[in-house]
Order: sequence, then structure tokens, then C-alpha cells
Amino acid sequence: MKAKLVIVALLCAMCSSAWAGKIVTDSIESKILGATVKYNVYVPNGFDKTNKLYPVVYLLHGLYGGYNDWAKQGNMQLVADELIGSGEAEEMIVIMPNAGHHDIHNVWNGYFNMPEWNYEDFFFQELIPQAEQKYRGVGDKMHRAIMGLSMGGGGSTVYAQHHPDAFSSCYAMSAWLDQPTIDEKMPHTKFYHTCVSVHENSAVAFVENATDEQVKQLKSVKWLFACGDDDGLMDLSVKIHQAMRSKRVKSELRIKNGVHNWEYWHLALREALPFASRAFAK
Amino acid sequence: MKAKLVIVALLCAMCSSAWAGKIVTDSIESKILGATVKYNVYVPNGFDKTNKLYPVVYLLHGLYGGYNDWAKQGNMQLVADELIGSGEAEEMIVIMPNAGHHDIHNVWNGYFNMPEWNYEDFFFQELIPQAEQKYRGVGDKMHRAIMGLSMGGGGSTVYAQHHPDAFSSCYAMSAWLDQPTIDEKMPHTKFYHTCVSVHENSAVAFVENATDEQVKQLKSVKWLFACGDDDGLMDLSVKIHQAMRSKRVKSELRIKNGVHNWEYWHLALREALPFASRAFAK
Amino acid sequence: MKAKLVIVALLCAMCSSAWAGKIVTDSIESKILGATVKYNVYVPNGFDKTNKLYPVVYLLHGLYGGYNDWAKQGNMQLVADELIGSGEAEEMIVIMPNAGHHDIHNVWNGYFNMPEWNYEDFFFQELIPQAEQKYRGVGDKMHRAIMGLSMGGGGSTVYAQHHPDAFSSCYAMSAWLDQPTIDEKMPHTKFYHTCVSVHENSAVAFVENATDEQVKQLKSVKWLFACGDDDGLMDLSVKIHQAMRSKRVKSELRIKNGVHNWEYWHLALREALPFASRAFAK
Amino acid sequence: MKAKLVIVALLCAMCSSAWAGKIVTDSIESKILGATVKYNVYVPNGFDKTNKLYPVVYLLHGLYGGYNDWAKQGNMQLVADELIGSGEAEEMIVIMPNAGHHDIHNVWNGYFNMPEWNYEDFFFQELIPQAEQKYRGVGDKMHRAIMGLSMGGGGSTVYAQHHPDAFSSCYAMSAWLDQPTIDEKMPHTKFYHTCVSVHENSAVAFVENATDEQVKQLKSVKWLFACGDDDGLMDLSVKIHQAMRSKRVKSELRIKNGVHNWEYWHLALREALPFASRAFAK
Repeated sequence: MKAKLVIVALLCAMCSSAWAGKIVTDSIESKILGATVKYNVYVPNGFDKTNKLYPVVYLLHGLYGGYNDWAKQGNMQLVADELIGSGEAEEMIVIMPNAGHHDIHNVWNGYFNMPEWNYEDFFFQELIPQAEQKYRGVGDKMHRAIMGLSMGGGGSTVYAQHHPDAFSSCYAMSAWLDQPTIDEKMPHTKFYHTCVSVHENSAVAFVENATDEQVKQLKSVKWLFACGDDDGLMDLSVKIHQAMRSKRVKSELRIKNGVHNWEYWHLALREALPFASRAFAK
Repeated sequence: MKAKLVIVALLCAMCSSAWAGKIVTDSIESKILGATVKYNVYVPNGFDKTNKLYPVVYLLHGLYGGYNDWAKQGNMQLVADELIGSGEAEEMIVIMPNAGHHDIHNVWNGYFNMPEWNYEDFFFQELIPQAEQKYRGVGDKMHRAIMGLSMGGGGSTVYAQHHPDAFSSCYAMSAWLDQPTIDEKMPHTKFYHTCVSVHENSAVAFVENATDEQVKQLKSVKWLFACGDDDGLMDLSVKIHQAMRSKRVKSELRIKNGVHNWEYWHLALREALPFASRAFAK
Repeated sequence: MKAKLVIVALLCAMCSSAWAGKIVTDSIESKILGATVKYNVYVPNGFDKTNKLYPVVYLLHGLYGGYNDWAKQGNMQLVADELIGSGEAEEMIVIMPNAGHHDIHNVWNGYFNMPEWNYEDFFFQELIPQAEQKYRGVGDKMHRAIMGLSMGGGGSTVYAQHHPDAFSSCYAMSAWLDQPTIDEKMPHTKFYHTCVSVHENSAVAFVENATDEQVKQLKSVKWLFACGDDDGLMDLSVKIHQAMRSKRVKSELRIKNGVHNWEYWHLALREALPFASRAFAK
Repeated sequence: MKAKLVIVALLCAMCSSAWAGKIVTDSIESKILGATVKYNVYVPNGFDKTNKLYPVVYLLHGLYGGYNDWAKQGNMQLVADELIGSGEAEEMIVIMPNAGHHDIHNVWNGYFNMPEWNYEDFFFQELIPQAEQKYRGVGDKMHRAIMGLSMGGGGSTVYAQHHPDAFSSCYAMSAWLDQPTIDEKMPHTKFYHTCVSVHENSAVAFVENATDEQVKQLKSVKWLFACGDDDGLMDLSVKIHQAMRSKRVKSELRIKNGVHNWEYWHLALREALPFASRAFAK
């Protein structure tokens, strides 16, 4: 009998965690975009067995990426399972929408409104209400966070700047926060248009130019900017932290060894989900 | 011009690290096994441009796994690139051999000698000399380390026990170090035979029964046993650490939050490569 | 003017944190002990300016130690300031009572009831109500945690076992959780009596012998046992974790490099305050 | 007998590490300064029993500090003991000289040459040769590192800039690397003179103005700049990292949560000793 117990232990070991959420793929028919937008959603262990409402994290991918990146390259399910299981993160819904390249309609890339592609409008008017309705989000600022990498770090920051009433925290990784100038000689590719939209939606300029009222609203969000020290975008994270500081908006800065890759973002996610959890209402 | 510089910085950011090794897939025609055994090998940045000799790490997969696991699920290249780039790990060759299920000849599973499948003989008589010849390993104990997960953690430990002259260090993750009893009523599947081989090659019993001469040799290897606290195999890591301690063989034990999965092993690898590096000759 | 700004920045740098609690020394006239018992209490930034109620952590010292140890050797104020400032720990009161050697009446050592020295009675009937009254503790299980080192790790565990209705979490560091046998030939020193009291209040035996009702109550507390791998008491942390597991009481185990010293405990405190915070009611 | 064993284990636990160096206080009669300069020196376990030569780390205190700071407030012995014991740091000598306020002759404060107080000359012409002779330093660049906090982080950086042939690595914590302008209306206190010396020995300007030959020499040192994100000096660490990068000198930057205090420096030392060790010759 002892042998059987040992073998059961072994097989249990191989089954890994008892605590396991799951990722499901869903989509939304966007009237604003005139497109079907896919998204992945992580639901925690026991989601199907309750009617509970959950806090919601939006987790954004980067340039040339898609809604599957965090699930596949970022191993987000294992990270979330572990952190929720240990109590370092709250039980939460994590929504990973597509702003990328996969579907025929996604001719435009990025998180900002562009001609014929008002993605920011879609995000706030369609995605948030519909997804939170369907996946039982609590539905208010104190139960909603945003985070993302690179272009998605910039998107996260700007969304929380434009909608400080919507998010309790923002964790921006390796974030593309500014595009100071545009080379008009560049071919007008999708990348060009994305550059223009980042230029027009500079997160750094937003802070530098913030009115007193905007500063007050910025202070209602918890901000963290994280970047690898060998990442070409590092200076932008420093710059926005300094701009926040000069406006007396509390902001966290984290620079560690790292570059612009999934090893860095995978580790950053381990910090980001607890950070968001601590900012949720208690 | 400034715009161009910014865009160059952005594209550099997306290219990630300048420091990048690569993983190549190779195979060996084993006379001992009568089989072709595949293996992946990580070679560091600049490998092709020098005649330098390198220290070598053997990185073993687990039960039901294969030679691709560490490369695909463990993201070992990004981990090695980062740690070597920062100096936390030495420039090294990492060999990830198949002991698994992929090829027709691999009817037997595991790292030990079994009837008609003398994998341990293959490992020491064919794999090590041929792979280190081909990939320019230094070729001695003080430039060779072994590590692995689960069944491969057990294999690593037993290999270093049987061949303490071959390895300067052993880092065993979530290791299957003992199979105290065998249920003879089990069907004689591949799993049954693997259980028998672990029983017959108990790493725990090896330490408990070690002669003075064997203890002396055990002391020439640096040992680290790492496991998640919710892993069904955790007790074995504790047990061997205690057995080592009672024989006055220095051994490290690390238990942190975790289960038997790739999130744990990915993070463990970040500790294991520096651990092995510190034990290489200076 | 720029020079002045720079110098102000420099002086600010030297003033360190804007966020700073303070430690005050207080004492209680214990009728139960017939002694004055000193304690240190950490109060968070702004404590004097509000009427707010706070969650309370009890932080216990070790054998031969005293109420000043955590403040002086453990640098607990800087740790608490940093963690509360960053949001990783809640704003909280931390009470560090004397169970030690300083005062003439403390002829008995330790946290348990002993002949003429009913310290556990004092702790629950006098210290908790009076200190939480004075320092504005919320005053219930979901806003109270206990933690400590060595003898105080054992005391923490046993207190939470005896009074599961009083604590939401227990974090035991390098804990003296059991004293299996007593050598009656030992001189009957204070140390002998402490050994006897640990023997009689074995935290390990408590779990092993727990009734179903006790198991149910144990499950209402979050448990974490942390120890260094070169600490002579490590096996006890493993043993209680295994006993908890066999009773299906969730418990966390953390073993890292370390010995029985203040470097280990200082680092452990950085984990313990967030652990306690996450278990407080939300 | 089992009881005795348990008690022995308990007492061993309390004795903490078997691996223990020690700190001794020494002094040097400086002809250059016309003063007696005290220093603490950490010697590793077994130092007195061999004739071995060791690599040497210079560990510098901050403004208004003294040679005892790292020993007392930084707990450097426990940190070094643990890291050397685990192999994360090499066996090494650590020299902590006084540049501070304690002795009557130290009317000038800081690490640079000042009128009547040529401390940098003293450091290289008297301290290094005499201390390394007495404490058996290997005595060359590849076995010597420098590190320090605040004013000592600036001193470390400038020393390694002025003497790149003397140090294999430099780890600057919360470093005062520049004093852009001087307010001539300041009273000419000791602090004023220190400001002037930092202005004249700007580490940032050194990099920005480095000749090709100097750049080449900077590349022979491993640089790491570490600072807390709420430290008033953080921008200087960023600035020198950016300057190094623009000159293509590899440099590491680490920003984590923290302020200008001993909690931060204590933790930084745990990173700094391994960093220095990895840069020593192998």
C-alpha cells in the first residue's frame, strides 16, 4: 500500500498545481472598428462554479504581436495560477485583447485612435463593458488594472492617463511612451502610422503638460514603470518617472538587468499581478 | 536625424539582446543503445568564431519528456543568454539529450541502465566524449556540471554519485530521488520499469549507505536540491539533504513556493546556471 | 538657483524616506506575572494625526533575547517603513514584547505558561487587550498576525494553534517547534525549564494529534514556516509542514541559504510583513 | 542520548554559521595627510591559518560617515560570511577606510584631493600598498574591486576612472556622482568644500569628456550603478549609465524600490560582493 501511495504522490507531482485557472479565447464584434476582435481571457480556479464578481486586469501585447502572446510566450496562466494560489495576487480575470496583426481588419496597429481605426474608443466603449459583463468583472476603477509590454506598455499608460477614473493601477513594461519626432521621409507603412499615433499620444508629454486637475487625477492611479537596463526604450521609463516626480505624482521605477524580450516580460508579470492586486479595493 | 535615431533605438529594442547564443539539434548513433539519440546543444555567442574550449552543462528532462523540453518549455536560450551576458553564468555549452519518448528505439525511459537499454553507459561512454569533442568541451570534472528536473533531477544526482570524478556540481530540481517500494501488481508498462530503475538506483539510499571512500568523493561535488513546497516530490529533496548532512557532505537545500511545473523549473534554471558556473575551475 | 536645487536634492537624499513610522518603548504592569513587562511598538507614519484603527502584528524575539532585538538587530523600522511605503505591507502596528532576560522578574524565559510565570495568560489576557486599546488595534482575528524567530517562532506557532480565533496568519522563522525529549540530568537552569516548556507545548505534536475540530480551526490561519538550510532547527520546519500537509491544512514552507542569525531574520521580515498583510481582512 | 543530540542541534543553531570571518580595526600613519587614518578590515574564515593571498574589495562610507559604518550599520560581516560560505562571493579581504569625521585631522571630508588633504594620493600611495601588504592582497587589478555608498559611491567611481589599471570592477550605490554647480553664497563649511571637490571630480563629466584612450580604459572595468527609485540622487546613476552607453562602455544600471538609507545599502551589498567576485580573475 505504501508503494501505491508513493506512486500517487509521484503522479500528483506530475499533475502540478491543484490550483489552476484556464485561458479561453473569445471575440467581440466591434461596431466601432467594423471588425471582429479576438481576445484571450484568463479565469481563475472555480470561476464556473460561482457567481462571484472579480477584479479585472487588462494585459496588452506589443508591436507586431497579438492576443496569444501573453498566453503562449509569456506563460501567463502558470504565473497567475502560482501567484493567486499563494495569495500574492488576488483572484482575478485577465483580459488580453488583440491590437495586432492577425485579422484582415487589423490593418492599423496599436492602441490609439487612428483614421478608420478608433481602437481606444473600441476599448472603452465596447471591450470593457462587454467583456466585464460576460466575465463578471466588478466593473469599477478600484477593481480594474492595466498593464502591458512595449507598445502595450505605452497603451496602458496612456489609457490610464486618459481614463484615470477607470484604473486603480498601471504597470508599464519596457514601455514605448513617446515618439519625439517623425521622419516624414519614412514610407507610410503600418509602422509609420503607429509611430505617428505614439507621437500624438505621448505619455511623457501628457505628464509634462498636465493641468492641476489632470495631476490630481494622475495621483489617483498607482504607477509603475519597469524596464531592462539594456533595453533601447529604457530612457523613456526614466523620463516619465522623472516627469511624474516633478509633478509630485507618486510613481515607481524599476530597472534591472534585461533586454526587450520575453524573459524580461515573463519575470515582470510576476511583479505586475501582485502590484495590481495591492491596488485593488479592500 | 533625431527621428531616425529614435527609430533605430526602437528597432534595437525590438531586436532584444546583442548577446545571443543559439540552440542546435544534433544526434548521436549509439552502438550501446542500438539507437539514434537526439540532443539539443546550446552554444554561446561567438562559438563559431573561435577555437575556444568551454565548460559543459548537461541539462536533463523529466519523465515523458524529451530533448526539446528545456528549449521550448524552459526557454533555456533566453535564460542562458541573459545570465552569460550579465556575467552571472560562464560562457558554456549546454547539452540536452533525449532520454524520452520520441524515437522508436526509446522504448525504455530514464537515465539508468535497464535490460537492453543501458542509457547510463551510453551517457558516459558515448554522449559525453563525442559531444564534448564536437562542441569543444574542456572535458574534465572542473569544467562539467549536471542538472535536471524530476526524473532528470534524479538522473543528475545519481550520475554525479556514480561518477563524482566527472562533475564539479549537481543541481537537482524537483528531483525523483528514490522509489522506496514497487507494487508488483502494477502492469509492466514503461512507467513500471522506470519506477524499478529509480528504486534500484535510489539516490537517497546511495548517500545513506555510502562508504567512507564514497563520502570523500561525494564531498568533491557541489550539491543543490531545489523543490517547490507544493510538489509531491519535495520530501525526497529534504531527505537527501538530511542524508548528506548526516554524512557531513555539504549540500544546499532550497524550498520555495512552487509545484511540479515549468514555471518553477524556468526560475530554477536561473539559479542553476550561476550555481554551476561558480563551481567551475577558476 | 540650480545649485540650490541640487543641494536640496542631496540633502533630501540624505534624509532618506519621507515615509517614516517610529518605534516607541512602553510597558505593562502585569498582574498575572507580577512584573513590569516592557515592549516596543512600531507605529506607522501619521499615527498621531488620526484616530484610525490599525491591524496589529506581534513580533517575537528568541531565546536569551529581549524586546529591543527586532528594533536594534533586526532594523525592523526601516523594513516596515519601506514595505508600507511601497504598499507591499499594510499600515500596521507592530508590537514586540519582552519575554526575555532584562528585568528582575523575568526569571523564566519563553512564551509558555510555567510555574509562577504564566506568560501565555499574560499575553492573551493583558498584553493583547491593553496594547491594542492603547495603540488602536482593530482588535479581531482578521486584523491580527503573529510572527517571530527561533523560540519566538515556536511561540508564534503555538499561540496561533491555541488561539486560532485570534490570528489570521502566523509566520515562523527558524522556529523551535518541538523538544522531543528532555535530558533529566541537565542542570535545572532557566534553559532547562524553557526546554521543558517547549517539550510540553510541542507545535509539531499539536498538529499530529489535532482533532477534526482542531484541524478545522488550524485551516482558518495562514501558516508559513521559513528557515535557513544550514540552521540546526531546519528539520522542525519541514516536520511541521509535513504534519500540516498530512492533515490537509495548507501551509507554506520556505528554505533558503541561511543560518540562525540576524542576516537571515532581517531578510525574513521583508517577506513576513507582506505575508501578514495579505491575510488581513479586505 | 537523543535528547543530548537535540540540544546540541539547538545550541549549534544558536551559534549560527560555522563559516565566519572577522572584522579587525587597524590604522595607518599617513605621511601624505599628516594624520592617522583608521580602517576596518574584514578577513575571511581561516585567514590566520594560511599564507594565501586574497582579492581585495575597498568598501567606502558616505558623507558624515566613518570607517565603522559598514561594520555596524551595514552588517557587512554577516553578509560577507553568508555569501562567501555559499560560494556566491569569493574569499576576499574587505577594507573599509575612514574618510570621515572621527579624528581631529579629518577636517576635510571626502575621497578627493583637497588643499592640505590629498586623500586620493593617500589612498593609492599609502593605503592600498600598505594594507594589501599587511593583509595579503594579491595586489593587482584583476584581484581588486571598489564599491561604496553615496559620497563613497562617487569616490569609488572616480577612483576607478582615474585608476582603471587598479580595479576590475566598481559598484556604486546611491552614488553622488556629480555636483553640477556650486552656490558661492554657501558658508564655506566642510560640506561646501566637499561639494566643490565633487564638482571638480565629476564622474559624469569624466565619462562625457573621455578621450578615446580613456574610453578604452573605462572598458576594462566592470561598472554597476545601483540606486533606490526614491533616492534624491537617482538621476545621477541614470545619467552616468547613459553617458557610459553613449561611449559604448558596458555598464549595468539597477533601480529598485528604495531610499537613501541602510536598508537599501545592506541589500545592495548582497549584490555587490558577488558582482565584484565575478569580475576577479579566474
